[in-house]
Amino acid sequence: MTPAEHLKKTEKKRMDDLFRFLKFPSVSASSKHKKDMIDCARWLADHLKSIGFKARTFPTGGHPLVYAEYLVDKKLPTVLYYGHYDVQPPEPLELWHTEPFRPEIRKGAIYARGAADDKGQIFAHIKGLEAILKAEKTLPVNVKMLVEGEEEVHSAHLPAWIKKNKKRLAADIVVISDTAQYGKNIPAVTFGLRGIAFVEVFINGPNRDVHSGSYGGAIANPVNVLCGLIGQLHDKNGRVTIPGFYQKIKPMTKWERQQYRKLPYSKQAFLKETGSPELHGEKGYSTFERIWVRPTLDVNGITGGYQGEGAKTIIPEWASAKITMRLVPNQDPMDICNKIERYLKKLAPNSVKLKVVKHGGAKGVVVPTDGPWLEAAARAIKKGFSKEPVFTKEGGSIPIVVDFKEILGLDTLLIGLCQSDDNIHSPNERFAVKDFERGCKMAANLPFELAKARS
Amino acid sequence: MTPAEHLKKTEKKRMDDLFRFLKFPSVSASSKHKKDMIDCARWLADHLKSIGFKARTFPTGGHPLVYAEYLVDKKLPTVLYYGHYDVQPPEPLELWHTEPFRPEIRKGAIYARGAADDKGQIFAHIKGLEAILKAEKTLPVNVKMLVEGEEEVHSAHLPAWIKKNKKRLAADIVVISDTAQYGKNIPAVTFGLRGIAFVEVFINGPNRDVHSGSYGGAIANPVNVLCGLIGQLHDKNGRVTIPGFYQKIKPMTKWERQQYRKLPYSKQAFLKETGSPELHGEKGYSTFERIWVRPTLDVNGITGGYQGEGAKTIIPEWASAKITMRLVPNQDPMDICNKIERYLKKLAPNSVKLKVVKHGGAKGVVVPTDGPWLEAAARAIKKGFSKEPVFTKEGGSIPIVVDFKEILGLDTLLIGLCQSDDNIHSPNERFAVKDFERGCKMAANLPFELAKARS
Repeated sequence: MTPAEHLKKTEKKRMDDLFRFLKFPSVSASSKHKKDMIDCARWLADHLKSIGFKARTFPTGGHPLVYAEYLVDKKLPTVLYYGHYDVQPPEPLELWHTEPFRPEIRKGAIYARGAADDKGQIFAHIKGLEAILKAEKTLPVNVKMLVEGEEEVHSAHLPAWIKKNKKRLAADIVVISDTAQYGKNIPAVTFGLRGIAFVEVFINGPNRDVHSGSYGGAIANPVNVLCGLIGQLHDKNGRVTIPGFYQKIKPMTKWERQQYRKLPYSKQAFLKETGSPELHGEKGYSTFERIWVRPTLDVNGITGGYQGEGAKTIIPEWASAKITMRLVPNQDPMDICNKIERYLKKLAPNSVKLKVVKHGGAKGVVVPTDGPWLEAAARAIKKGFSKEPVFTKEGGSIPIVVDFKEILGLDTLLIGLCQSDDNIHSPNERFAVKDFERGCKMAANLPFELAKARS
Repeated sequence: MTPAEHLKKTEKKRMDDLFRFLKFPSVSASSKHKKDMIDCARWLADHLKSIGFKARTFPTGGHPLVYAEYLVDKKLPTVLYYGHYDVQPPEPLELWHTEPFRPEIRKGAIYARGAADDKGQIFAHIKGLEAILKAEKTLPVNVKMLVEGEEEVHSAHLPAWIKKNKKRLAADIVVISDTAQYGKNIPAVTFGLRGIAFVEVFINGPNRDVHSGSYGGAIANPVNVLCGLIGQLHDKNGRVTIPGFYQKIKPMTKWERQQYRKLPYSKQAFLKETGSPELHGEKGYSTFERIWVRPTLDVNGITGGYQGEGAKTIIPEWASAKITMRLVPNQDPMDICNKIERYLKKLAPNSVKLKVVKHGGAKGVVVPTDGPWLEAAARAIKKGFSKEPVFTKEGGSIPIVVDFKEILGLDTLLIGLCQSDDNIHSPNERFAVKDFERGCKMAANLPFELAKARS
């Protein structure tokens, strides 16, 4: 019996197991679910044990995490799987067509909180590994698996635990399925994430709101000055003007540019999705490149002066803005914070006081495209989905990926199994049965392909 | 007996009369003082009658106004005096050293709500006119006097009443004492006020707050765009860049520039007063010129995106700003609103939607400096204060002055009698006895000087 045959034979059993997993109301944000969290973690550890793993729960200071191992041979590559068993709060409950913690299959999809994010996805890996173990009585790689219970509450205790367990977690590559496919029937490997740097800018002018008639024209207006500064942070071509901002950034490889050209893309669909009347960005780059490959600067919020109804003729005492910059590899968050501070200080007139609060952030990460891991993942996906995956990046940050890179020195393969419209974090979260099945199949192939990658 | 001798003789009586006027709690903003308002208006009309005026109260739809006349001869110039008998609310009461409506003289000043703003100042004119009448049994000019009861609540019903009574109010010049001297022992004539134009600018981008990781770089950020637009509204020399903004503005005359050079001015004191670290304004102009003579553009408030604690990595759906421009004569508020709208529409990228709500505003006004009225006022001030007045402008707007100009075609002489630190609108409002006395003396001379102006 092959792993694939085992999967075929156990279709109903696998769905029953997944339903059991989904029934735990493992809402990490809600203190009333503290015991449900423990129950869910224990059930998962027991389930992993029943498959053949060495597994246990670990206390973290918050919700427990589940850690499991199946170590075969030191000479084989070691794969660290990461997932999370905690879920988003299901509220507003009245918008669910069925109960969030009573999974049900409708129109080919499993409906339940956590079906896609992330119970269903990590479970596909578990069931893929189980299939190999049943068929082969061993695994082609060493497997370590970390399933945390605090992903939806910012993984508060995980980095500390990883630091304390560096040796235990030593591996060659990380596998995470906690993202989406590129589209229906377009599986994807995400090979890069942007980082982020966050600053808050404060401008102070007069020592109180003053009358804009009595003083207007003779003293600096903090809002006008702040706007002038922000306006100077981009040039006419949409490039960020901060000196050194693009320094050290590597240009896209031909291969990368080619990948993006292959992706189905409709400008009209993109504009409809956002509601924006027209594209807007750095000259010379496509939409994908602008979102995935190029660093950006956005004001997330601005405030100053009178914001109520009607007019109030003042020169405001102060104004402030929250600015985040999305970073790409080789940009360091604190270095970028220092650079924007230096630039703003240079630009600001001495008629105001400027303060930049530098919050730092997270680095961007990429999986080397010239190494063997991406190809291995692509082969496994092709076997599971009967379709070549596309290679994409993600414009946002997934902090845990940075932690794996920074603490453990590990690259991460992001293999999305669900769809971007599966209502993650919303009512009626779902996971297509077909995607779960193809995910299990992919997962039953991935270890073999990863084993090949090292040899 | 001369008017001056009459004033000297009646010092105590005049103060008693003023105290009686100040004792009415004529708070126009508070409905519980409705009857006090009527009582105060009636008392004032009766008082004017006792002096020899034809006087009565007029209903307005709000608080009554007092109108009085002393018409001598059609050939003589007619002076329209304006003042208000209503006062600001006295709260917070606990900060007053004596009761706001129990006037008391301490350290040479009358302490009471309304002492300076504006009961004390209009009363100085009434007592000056009374002195002339007692001494001469007539006046050298025709006098009309309008004392309203809604100045502190934006003169809601006055413009309509003026429009309905255009004939009744026909005059040659308006006199208002509702501003301050330039400084201690520096009496002033204000010969110009800036106008104002108000617009609100709204920028819309995506149809909701979107994730700045997933979309940042590919669509326009409304806050960034709004800041860029506002940043372009001034050039490097502090000039407003709106095409046609300065069109039709007359340059300062030599005389005007000379007046400002004569004014005592300390940059350090000005900066201390505002708290601003340095001056900031249009190149080539002094502080006075920037505030009084040049039109300006100030953002009074800006808002957009996330303004709470910490970071929220969004591209905001929208951003907006309130912008007022201070205008000088020959600038039309609605024309300026149209110009900024046209300019912003030209500057805004098509990746956002721009809306400009044009609220219009008020024109700036000046008393012609080459006519006889200013000089007449200066001579009267010199006689009253034993000191040459300075000629100043005011950066803010006094809407009633615009109404007099627009509805009645009349220029206004603004003769400030109090000091700028007399706690107008604050607890412990006061009016120096010396300033009241000098004001009465000035007021007993002004009609003679104005009579000369026309001849």
